[in-house]
Amino acid sequence: MRWHYIFYVVGILLFFLGLFMLLPLATALIYRDEPLLPHFLSIGVCLAVGGLLFLSLRGKNARNDYVSPREGMGIVAVGWMAVGAFGALPFYLGGQFGGITDCLFESVSGFTTTGASILREIEPVSKGMLLWRSFIQWLGGMGIIVLSLAILPILGVGGMQLYKAEVPSPVPDKLKPRIRDTAMILWKVYALITAVEVVLLMFGGMDLFDALNHAFTTLPTGGFSTENASVAHFDSGYIDMVITLFMLLAGINFTLHYQFLKGQTLAFWRDAECRFFLGTTLFLTLVIAFDIFGTVYETATGAFRYSVFQAASIITTTGFATADYEQWPAMSQIILLLCMFIGGSAGSTGGGMKCLRVMVCFKYCYKELFSLIHPHAVTHVKIAGKTVPEDVVRSVLGFLALYMMLFAVAVVLLAGTGVDLVTAFGAVAAAIGNIGPGLGMVGPVENYADIPLFGKWILIWCMLLGRLEIYTVIILLVPEFWRK
Amino acid sequence: MRWHYIFYVVGILLFFLGLFMLLPLATALIYRDEPLLPHFLSIGVCLAVGGLLFLSLRGKNARNDYVSPREGMGIVAVGWMAVGAFGALPFYLGGQFGGITDCLFESVSGFTTTGASILREIEPVSKGMLLWRSFIQWLGGMGIIVLSLAILPILGVGGMQLYKAEVPSPVPDKLKPRIRDTAMILWKVYALITAVEVVLLMFGGMDLFDALNHAFTTLPTGGFSTENASVAHFDSGYIDMVITLFMLLAGINFTLHYQFLKGQTLAFWRDAECRFFLGTTLFLTLVIAFDIFGTVYETATGAFRYSVFQAASIITTTGFATADYEQWPAMSQIILLLCMFIGGSAGSTGGGMKCLRVMVCFKYCYKELFSLIHPHAVTHVKIAGKTVPEDVVRSVLGFLALYMMLFAVAVVLLAGTGVDLVTAFGAVAAAIGNIGPGLGMVGPVENYADIPLFGKWILIWCMLLGRLEIYTVIILLVPEFWRK
Repeated sequence: MRWHYIFYVVGILLFFLGLFMLLPLATALIYRDEPLLPHFLSIGVCLAVGGLLFLSLRGKNARNDYVSPREGMGIVAVGWMAVGAFGALPFYLGGQFGGITDCLFESVSGFTTTGASILREIEPVSKGMLLWRSFIQWLGGMGIIVLSLAILPILGVGGMQLYKAEVPSPVPDKLKPRIRDTAMILWKVYALITAVEVVLLMFGGMDLFDALNHAFTTLPTGGFSTENASVAHFDSGYIDMVITLFMLLAGINFTLHYQFLKGQTLAFWRDAECRFFLGTTLFLTLVIAFDIFGTVYETATGAFRYSVFQAASIITTTGFATADYEQWPAMSQIILLLCMFIGGSAGSTGGGMKCLRVMVCFKYCYKELFSLIHPHAVTHVKIAGKTVPEDVVRSVLGFLALYMMLFAVAVVLLAGTGVDLVTAFGAVAAAIGNIGPGLGMVGPVENYADIPLFGKWILIWCMLLGRLEIYTVIILLVPEFWRK
Repeated sequence: MRWHYIFYVVGILLFFLGLFMLLPLATALIYRDEPLLPHFLSIGVCLAVGGLLFLSLRGKNARNDYVSPREGMGIVAVGWMAVGAFGALPFYLGGQFGGITDCLFESVSGFTTTGASILREIEPVSKGMLLWRSFIQWLGGMGIIVLSLAILPILGVGGMQLYKAEVPSPVPDKLKPRIRDTAMILWKVYALITAVEVVLLMFGGMDLFDALNHAFTTLPTGGFSTENASVAHFDSGYIDMVITLFMLLAGINFTLHYQFLKGQTLAFWRDAECRFFLGTTLFLTLVIAFDIFGTVYETATGAFRYSVFQAASIITTTGFATADYEQWPAMSQIILLLCMFIGGSAGSTGGGMKCLRVMVCFKYCYKELFSLIHPHAVTHVKIAGKTVPEDVVRSVLGFLALYMMLFAVAVVLLAGTGVDLVTAFGAVAAAIGNIGPGLGMVGPVENYADIPLFGKWILIWCMLLGRLEIYTVIILLVPEFWRK
């Protein structure tokens, strides 16, 4: 375990974070609605700390291509925590986001692409800060794509080995070149789709600032908005449609986007997980539309418009809102809560348990039933015609169980801080699934400002746990990890 | 698949059910507070239907010792449904329990040892009916002991193979002699403990009728009471203590009771699951006591008295109440909700997921973490020093996942009938875990009378699913099961 290597990489990350902060600085320069000092200071700190770590540790690490699994996990966990902490600097120094916990909460919520906010009022916040808030979600999304398609498959976390062979890479089993390679290809795809969304949103009448912000938070399935009322503010069927489309795209494995752009027009259709993801979203949309038609909305098109947006927003774990679903019948609310657990596709920027794992779980349970009827038949779980190895099935099931156990523990702890039962469930489900809005006190038209201090810390950890596929974070608690 | 064999066994069950109905008839004769016709009619129908099935199918099945796994599951599922349906006859004919759905609900709730009641007022109900209501729980508990210690281990349902070698039986792999054997030994233990509880309750001032009823519903972790206020009615620290003790005993694997009575005084301590069960109960009791001390109860002893009773009642899935825990802080309520999922020990009469499965799940997750740090180390899940085979671990994890999936589906369906969010969660958790009282509309001082008709049917199926370890019921939905 080379801690110096971990901090060397973290140094590079922080240095880049400092460079990225030039974007909100530029925004502040254009809009001139806030002091520039917080931006300059944040940039200075990030460049200095990042640069120092890089320079002081470079000698030891310059020529090293091998990264052990333990180091890989250390980089992921420490890296995300570090950018979460340093990314909060502009918020804290700008003074518009409250105390240290609130700033950290907002920043971690950004980098984990959760979208839970402690802001009571979003609109009065200065433009530079709002752009930084959206931009860190976009950066977080980039990190997630690399994490889920290049790092986790090699580490074998929670059954993600399934994707081991599917990403283009010339050096399939070496962590460093593979990451560089995958990152470059997929980030281009990610940036391209973002740009298309910006253009389409501007067609619908959004100004460049709003379009940029919303595209920055759609692609990572983040869900921070520049408006208190979220996407409902624009009250436009066209904008709802565009954002629904791009949320769904963001919930699909980015490898498929790459294949599609390379000319494989049937890439989405051929992928079993993609079919499952879109089919589930459509099915749940229809059930919700049926439930809210007549009770909440007068017209069938209205019911469908709001149900498809909300179902897509929650199952992709984006968290944008066009309706206060807490006013919907209990069944629709529970379906949305269920969507928080299902989540997007593996290899997308979506959170939750991931469709792939849910599929493996379904198929395994069916296989169990079959084996009970034919005890001597040899059966396997198959996804898209390929047999899933038994240890991967076990990993997947173990992941789901661990997810639920941590969910339960966090709900108990959060309730211990004094919030009510529904809020405890909704807030933890929304944090660990990286959605953003939950139920109760933290519904789609509310925020996390009134959660007690200790509760905010619980949720910060939930966001990190959920986003980094649990194992990468929880492993820091295992004594074995720290042993030499 | 010999359906005639299944119905032959069901015939025997119904015949015995008719004989057991002599007990409430005798009660009615003693108390003379109700017409006797409903009892006579019910006995007649059960004896006639049971006798006819037995006699007409005996020729084909008299000399058959081999039962296939599929037939075993058919007997379990059809058998439980049949006694549930015919056991409802006295309720329906007596006219004190409402319509067919309500009577079926009460009867299935009895035979599955759930204890959820549709009675708004229990006290006015005649003695014979109350005794029958308690007695069917006691019979259900007998069935469960045999099911979990003799039938499921052989069928290999949800990882119950773990118990394969632990029950005394001269013919370890033949279903029929094994069941007869195990049943005889363990029912004696069950009856003995029940008798001791009756005596101890009478020491505390209960009359014979109340003592019998409460002992009949403690041992199967059922929880039907003869009083509206449940055990709170007696308002006696001694009775609370006795019932707490016997609920805990009922939540322990009955094989251990047998071993203990055979002179192995350390039997409980030596069993890993028993230590886990008692340890978890104690830990959660202390957390709840800490949470309600000062906020709900003035004294520490008061807080402990009510927290230990309620924690034991819910984790063993009995469902007796000495306090309205819906008035407790949210954390305590959520811990109790969590207890509904954990449940008692495997091989006890308790429901829920079972401690053994939760343990396997914990240990597997820890093993996963260890393997991430040492990818090449070979590790196994061990319970009490013995390696758990990998396919059993997978079965256990699959069972937990299936349990949660069915829970989610049932919550959505129940909410679709119009009940609120908390009630939907609480009622399904209480039904599928066979607890009885839940949260919201169906809390410890309320009942299931106001659940909509379709909702009651959903809960009837949940009770059966949970009690029969899911697979045995859900397998009826698999087309493969019906194929010749």
